[in-house]
Amino acid sequence: MAETQGKVITCRAAVAWGPKEPLVIQEICVDPPQEMEVRVKILYTSICHTDLGTWTGVNEAERAFPRILGHEAVGVVESVGEGVKDVKEGDYVIPTFNGECGECRVCKKEVSNLCERYKVDPMKRLMVNDGGTRFSTTTNKDGGSSQSQRIYHFLNTSTFTEYTVLDSACVVKIDPNAPLKQMSLLSCGVSTGVGAAWNTAKVKEGTTTAVFGLGSVGLAVAEGARARGASRIIGVDANASKFEKGKVMGVTDFINPKDLTKPVHERIRELTRGGVDYSFECTGNVDVLREAFLSTHAGWGSTVLVGIYATPRTLPLHPMELFDGRKITGSVFGGFKPKSQLPSFAQQCMKGVVKLEPFITNELPFEKINDAFQLLRDGKSLRCLLQIAKHTTRKQQGY
Amino acid sequence: MAETQGKVITCRAAVAWGPKEPLVIQEICVDPPQEMEVRVKILYTSICHTDLGTWTGVNEAERAFPRILGHEAVGVVESVGEGVKDVKEGDYVIPTFNGECGECRVCKKEVSNLCERYKVDPMKRLMVNDGGTRFSTTTNKDGGSSQSQRIYHFLNTSTFTEYTVLDSACVVKIDPNAPLKQMSLLSCGVSTGVGAAWNTAKVKEGTTTAVFGLGSVGLAVAEGARARGASRIIGVDANASKFEKGKVMGVTDFINPKDLTKPVHERIRELTRGGVDYSFECTGNVDVLREAFLSTHAGWGSTVLVGIYATPRTLPLHPMELFDGRKITGSVFGGFKPKSQLPSFAQQCMKGVVKLEPFITNELPFEKINDAFQLLRDGKSLRCLLQIAKHTTRKQQGY
Repeated sequence: MAETQGKVITCRAAVAWGPKEPLVIQEICVDPPQEMEVRVKILYTSICHTDLGTWTGVNEAERAFPRILGHEAVGVVESVGEGVKDVKEGDYVIPTFNGECGECRVCKKEVSNLCERYKVDPMKRLMVNDGGTRFSTTTNKDGGSSQSQRIYHFLNTSTFTEYTVLDSACVVKIDPNAPLKQMSLLSCGVSTGVGAAWNTAKVKEGTTTAVFGLGSVGLAVAEGARARGASRIIGVDANASKFEKGKVMGVTDFINPKDLTKPVHERIRELTRGGVDYSFECTGNVDVLREAFLSTHAGWGSTVLVGIYATPRTLPLHPMELFDGRKITGSVFGGFKPKSQLPSFAQQCMKGVVKLEPFITNELPFEKINDAFQLLRDGKSLRCLLQIAKHTTRKQQGY
Repeated sequence: MAETQGKVITCRAAVAWGPKEPLVIQEICVDPPQEMEVRVKILYTSICHTDLGTWTGVNEAERAFPRILGHEAVGVVESVGEGVKDVKEGDYVIPTFNGECGECRVCKKEVSNLCERYKVDPMKRLMVNDGGTRFSTTTNKDGGSSQSQRIYHFLNTSTFTEYTVLDSACVVKIDPNAPLKQMSLLSCGVSTGVGAAWNTAKVKEGTTTAVFGLGSVGLAVAEGARARGASRIIGVDANASKFEKGKVMGVTDFINPKDLTKPVHERIRELTRGGVDYSFECTGNVDVLREAFLSTHAGWGSTVLVGIYATPRTLPLHPMELFDGRKITGSVFGGFKPKSQLPSFAQQCMKGVVKLEPFITNELPFEKINDAFQLLRDGKSLRCLLQIAKHTTRKQQGY
């Protein structure tokens, strides 16, 4: 039993104090887990665009500061609260922003991963159990001391910290022999992209695919489509520097909209006898969404939305356009039920069905987290991995 | 061989001369069928809202006069053009506005009924073969004589006439023992509604359904859902007089939006533990569309669009609303591939799986076609059947 069990842990975290303010690495207090909660020591975390979006405070309704962001990570269970059965101290786990309670109507159906109790909720900032937080600090953002104040949680996860507390529904146990650094990617980006291809679109062998936006998620879609045997994967991005990496992930054709004198969907229809079987919108731009929709083949084309649409604009599609047999659907966390399906997905990654290592383009120590933010903002990294805790009890390839 | 084969037939038709002008019953000339065309003697026809919409000329781009409207009918083949193999003189047939060539990429896939060559096209007014018409007249709308002028076709069908010419892709052979009057309904309304439930939504036993708009198509959706064992079918209509007929078609609950102080979707969610499994939008109103979408259960709800949206307004849905796991899709001709699937659907109707006879609420002679239009406009009929040709060569129950 960990000597910290049942006690408050004092540790370091990167705290966001306000929109666009640099994160502050400082001491915080992490309460013990309550009933059906898990306290996790974070080993590695990476940064995703959703962290950036929340940090910039673009959506006022979602703002809550001070807050600990972060949702891609891998860690080890420090202790568990009452009632937690499926993980125990010492288990290697990944946090998941889209939970699985296993008991609600949705969890009991195969068709959806949107758990009624723990599905992704960008508004959520407090723990379900008591409406409180497990994080607090007596240090203010300038390093001076203050009265104890609470720090908000983020996206069921909050991983930019040495220790975090999560609902057990949001903790997935993984194989202790897995390459831990890479497992961090399964918390969000890679699962979201590969799952959009596998679970939502159900890409079949020999089919054609277009991916709009070649960031980590878009490339993960391409990698997922490649793994499923898609014969043609068209990558669309206005940043030509993305194309090199795209080739590694199986992208066969590239379109830079800036090079065209016609709409992208017309070019894609020319290339593919009337349109692709599947298109994936990974930019969060509704005009791109329309291009993605129109780039699929009438009759059976399927467009999967993966981007986050921060705009108030509604869908730029006329209802009659849905009568051409083109389908459009959203995909959350790649349609994966985290506890039920991620362990087997992790196994497939370990077997090389999906390549994870090309997604990690940078590594930095935890203290450099603001530099990692900047790399992502500048489009210079796919995933920058931050090492948070040194973990020396196990020797393992990959970390 | 019919003595008229290869000759121009002079017969009566109801010609639309301009938007909202009463149809004129007059003499027209019907040319022989060309290659892969079929000339059909119409026995019965009925009137659908799409005829009304085109007649009123609401969509300027679709206007074409003089024109012979009509797309729900049953008839007998008078003669066939070169190359037609699957029907012959004397066969009983129904016209279908959404054709099936059997040879294009879409026809060869199971997933869609939107034939690349003959799918529904409200703009189409000329025959594919030669870009001409098979209808002409030397009588102007006032009954006086004029130089011969062509009369436009409508929706691959044009059934308000004693004889019509269709592409053979738009002609479906039916069992000669079928009740002919009722078979007319399979040309559009009933197939569209029942098929939306069976083929597009794939309604399963024990599920819940909401139908917005209880005209013929909405009631056919309800009848289709009832036949598939839906446990609850909620009918929504602002015209309370529709509710009596709804009960016959299996509607279990009624909602009149005028009676509510809250949005319809909230009431439906209350009635159904969070929403129905399937909703069907049969009104063509985009605000109703939004209610239909929100009335389904998050995670797996499916909304099927069946109405015709004449508005320029785009979908009043935010892209993020597609991330709640609710799906939305359009259904054309109920997803039925006409030649491949309608004959077996007709058999199921004959066995009573789906009841057809409640849909025929009125019968009038051909000459009263303007009265039949008015009945539909006033919401006083579901389907008014017009007898066009007397057909005395076969004795048969039902006609």
